[in-house]
Amino acid sequence: MLSQKYKDMCNTPSVIRSLAVYASERGKEIGYENVFDYSLGNPSVPVPEEFNKAIRELTETLSSNELHGYSPNPGNPGVRTAIAESLKKRFGLPYEQKHIFMTSAAASAIAHAVRCVTAPGDEVLTFAPHFPEYVPYINETGAVLKVVPADTGSFQINFDEFEKMLNPKVQAVLINTPNNPSGVAYSSATLKRLADTLYEKQKEYGHEIFLISDEPYREIVFKGADAPYVSSFYDNTLSCYSFSKSLSVPGERIGYVAVNPAAKDADMIVPMCVQISRGTGHNCPSSIIQMAAARCAYLTSDLSVYETNMNLIYDKLIELGFTVVKPGGTFYIFPKALEEDSQAFCEKAKKYDLILVPGDSFKAKGFFRMAYCIDTEKVKRSLPVLEKFVKEEYGR
Amino acid sequence: MLSQKYKDMCNTPSVIRSLAVYASERGKEIGYENVFDYSLGNPSVPVPEEFNKAIRELTETLSSNELHGYSPNPGNPGVRTAIAESLKKRFGLPYEQKHIFMTSAAASAIAHAVRCVTAPGDEVLTFAPHFPEYVPYINETGAVLKVVPADTGSFQINFDEFEKMLNPKVQAVLINTPNNPSGVAYSSATLKRLADTLYEKQKEYGHEIFLISDEPYREIVFKGADAPYVSSFYDNTLSCYSFSKSLSVPGERIGYVAVNPAAKDADMIVPMCVQISRGTGHNCPSSIIQMAAARCAYLTSDLSVYETNMNLIYDKLIELGFTVVKPGGTFYIFPKALEEDSQAFCEKAKKYDLILVPGDSFKAKGFFRMAYCIDTEKVKRSLPVLEKFVKEEYGR
Repeated sequence: MLSQKYKDMCNTPSVIRSLAVYASERGKEIGYENVFDYSLGNPSVPVPEEFNKAIRELTETLSSNELHGYSPNPGNPGVRTAIAESLKKRFGLPYEQKHIFMTSAAASAIAHAVRCVTAPGDEVLTFAPHFPEYVPYINETGAVLKVVPADTGSFQINFDEFEKMLNPKVQAVLINTPNNPSGVAYSSATLKRLADTLYEKQKEYGHEIFLISDEPYREIVFKGADAPYVSSFYDNTLSCYSFSKSLSVPGERIGYVAVNPAAKDADMIVPMCVQISRGTGHNCPSSIIQMAAARCAYLTSDLSVYETNMNLIYDKLIELGFTVVKPGGTFYIFPKALEEDSQAFCEKAKKYDLILVPGDSFKAKGFFRMAYCIDTEKVKRSLPVLEKFVKEEYGR
Repeated sequence: MLSQKYKDMCNTPSVIRSLAVYASERGKEIGYENVFDYSLGNPSVPVPEEFNKAIRELTETLSSNELHGYSPNPGNPGVRTAIAESLKKRFGLPYEQKHIFMTSAAASAIAHAVRCVTAPGDEVLTFAPHFPEYVPYINETGAVLKVVPADTGSFQINFDEFEKMLNPKVQAVLINTPNNPSGVAYSSATLKRLADTLYEKQKEYGHEIFLISDEPYREIVFKGADAPYVSSFYDNTLSCYSFSKSLSVPGERIGYVAVNPAAKDADMIVPMCVQISRGTGHNCPSSIIQMAAARCAYLTSDLSVYETNMNLIYDKLIELGFTVVKPGGTFYIFPKALEEDSQAFCEKAKKYDLILVPGDSFKAKGFFRMAYCIDTEKVKRSLPVLEKFVKEEYGR
C-alpha cells in the first residue's frame, strides 16, 4: 500500500519552486529575459574549466576499476586526504583523512550528521530565518526541529530566545553561515558566544551538544565581512560542506562532513556515517566527481559577480527606503517588505514581473528573499522596475 | 551525544568485507596474484569506452549549467525519457518518463521503493539466500524484513514456506533475480506462480502488495537461462536497477526505480520518491553520470568473461562431487559445502589461499559463495588448488 505520509507530503509544494515555475511560464509569454526572476538559488557562473579538464584527464589516465570501481564506504581515500589537507592548510585544524566523510552534497552531509548525534525524539535547534528544507531534513531523521526566532535587526543569533529554548533534550544545533536567506555571516563575536553557551550547557546537561554547520556558501564571502570558520570556535562541530556553489556544480552532488579532530569520539563519527548510509541508500558520491572535486579543492568559480550584484541591489534598496541588513556573503538578500504581509507584497511585485520570495517560507514573516545569482545586466535592468513597483504600489 | 544505535552497528563488521581485507593483507605477503580471492562482487571487466567518451563529449559540448546545474528532483528529464524508451523497447511495457526515478544505484532505489510502499512496522518478505545488506536496507526504513527459507534444491522460491509467512502485515516482497549469491534466475514458472500468489493475497487482504525487484544483474544472463523481465508478470512491480554491473561503474552510483505503468497509483510513485529523498539526503545522482548512462542505455561491458568463468568453475565443482545449482546469470555460484559447518569449510579453504564466503551471511547455512568476477587466467590457476583442498581436507 502506498505510504500515506509521503503521499501527503506531495500535496505541500515548495513556495520557492512554485514561484520558479511561475517565472518560467511567464517567460514563455513575454520572453524570459523580461522576467526578473529572483526566486531560485541556482549558481549562474560557470564551473572552473579545471573541473571539466580534470574529468577528461581522469577518463584518459586511470584504469576502469581505479576510476569507476567502488569507493571504500567513507569515500575515496586520496580524495579524503586531499580535502583534509586543504582544510588544515586554510583553517589550521589538524584534520586527517579519518575525519572526512564524502557525501552527495550538503543535503546528504546533514542527513548523516544529524543521525549521527541524535536519537529519535531528540531536539535539534536552528535559527530563523532558515532554509525551508531543514524541516524535512531534520524531522525525517526522527529528531525534532525547533526554530529559534530571528534577531531581525541583525540576523545574527537571538541569544535571549536561544537560551530560553535550550534544554537537556537538545542534542544538536544547526547553523548556516553565510546564511540562506539573509546573506548574513555570523561574526566572530556571535560564534564565540554560541560556543560559550554550548560549552556551558554541555556541562550542565552532562552530554555533548553537537554543532552542525551547514556551509554551502563558505566560499562566497564579500569584502570586509567577518565570516570566520565555524569549527575553529567549538570542538564538537561537524562541518557540512557542498561544492555546489563554490564550483557551480549543484547537479554533481558532491560534498563532505568534516569532523573537528577535537570532537568527542572524533574517530568514531566517520565509521558511524558509513553505517547510516546503509539505511538511507547512500553509498558514496560518484567516484569520478569525488576525484575531480579533490583536484579543485583550492579553486572556486569566479564568484565576484555575486558581490557586484549584491552591491547594486543593496544600494538601490537603501535609496528606496528599505530596511535591509547588508549581506556578508552568499547570493541572497533579505529586506523587510513594505507592508506587514510579505506574501501580499511579493504578489504585487509579480505584476511588475519581479519574482520575490516571501519570508514566511524561511520562518521570518514580513521579509522577502532575492536570489541574485543572475546576470548583472539583468540585475541592472530590474532596478528601475523595482523603483516603479515601490513608487506605484507604496507611494515612495 | 553520539547515537548508540550506529555506534553498535560499527561493531558488526561484514563477513564479506572482512574476507576481502584478509585477501588483500595475504596478497601483501605472497603476492595478490597468488590469492584466489572469490570474496567480493566487484566487476572485473572494463567500462565500455563509449561511457568515457560520452563523459568527455558532454564536458565539451554542454554549457556549465546544462551539464552541472541542478537536475529536477526525479532526475534529468531527457535521461528519464531515454531509459523509459529503452525499457519499453526491450520489455514491451508502456513506460514513460513519469515512471522513472533516477537513483544512486540499486541501494538508493531500494531505499526509495521500500519507503514508498510501507509504513513503519509493516513486513517485507524476501527469500533466502539473499544479499546480506537487505537487513539494514529494509529495517532502517522502519519496516521489518522477514526471510523465507531457501529451496536449497533449486534456489527458486520455496512457495510452501512463503505462503505460511504471508499475512496482512506484508506490504512488499523483495526479490533479486538473477540472484546474489546463488546465481540462479527465477524462471517464468516461478514468477508466474509468485504473481498469482500475490494477486490472490492482495484480494484477500484488501490492499496492494508491491513487488520490489532488485535487478543489478539483469544484463548478466547466461546461454539458455530462462530469466524473464519481472515486471511483465505483476503490475504492482517496482524495478530497482543499477548500471554498476552492466557497465562496470559501481563507483559512479547510478540506477533507477522503474514503476510498472499498470501499478496502483503509478503516477504518484515518482513524486513520492522525491519526497522520500528530502529526508534521506538523496537529491539525484550526479548529472553528468546520469547523462552518460543514458547514452549507454543499450550497451553493456563485455560480460562474456563471467559465463566463461562460471562454466570452468561449475564443471570443476561437478567433477569434484559438489552439489551445486548451475547459475543462470550474475558472477556468483553457491555450492553446498563439504561439511555441515560452511564457516569451518571456508576457514579450511583459507589455508590454500582460496577465499570463499560462508553461506551463513546469506541466510543459507551449509553453502558457500564464490564471486568469479576475476580474470579467467586466475580462475584456471585456482582449479587445481580447489582440487588439492578438497582431496587433502575431505579425501575426495
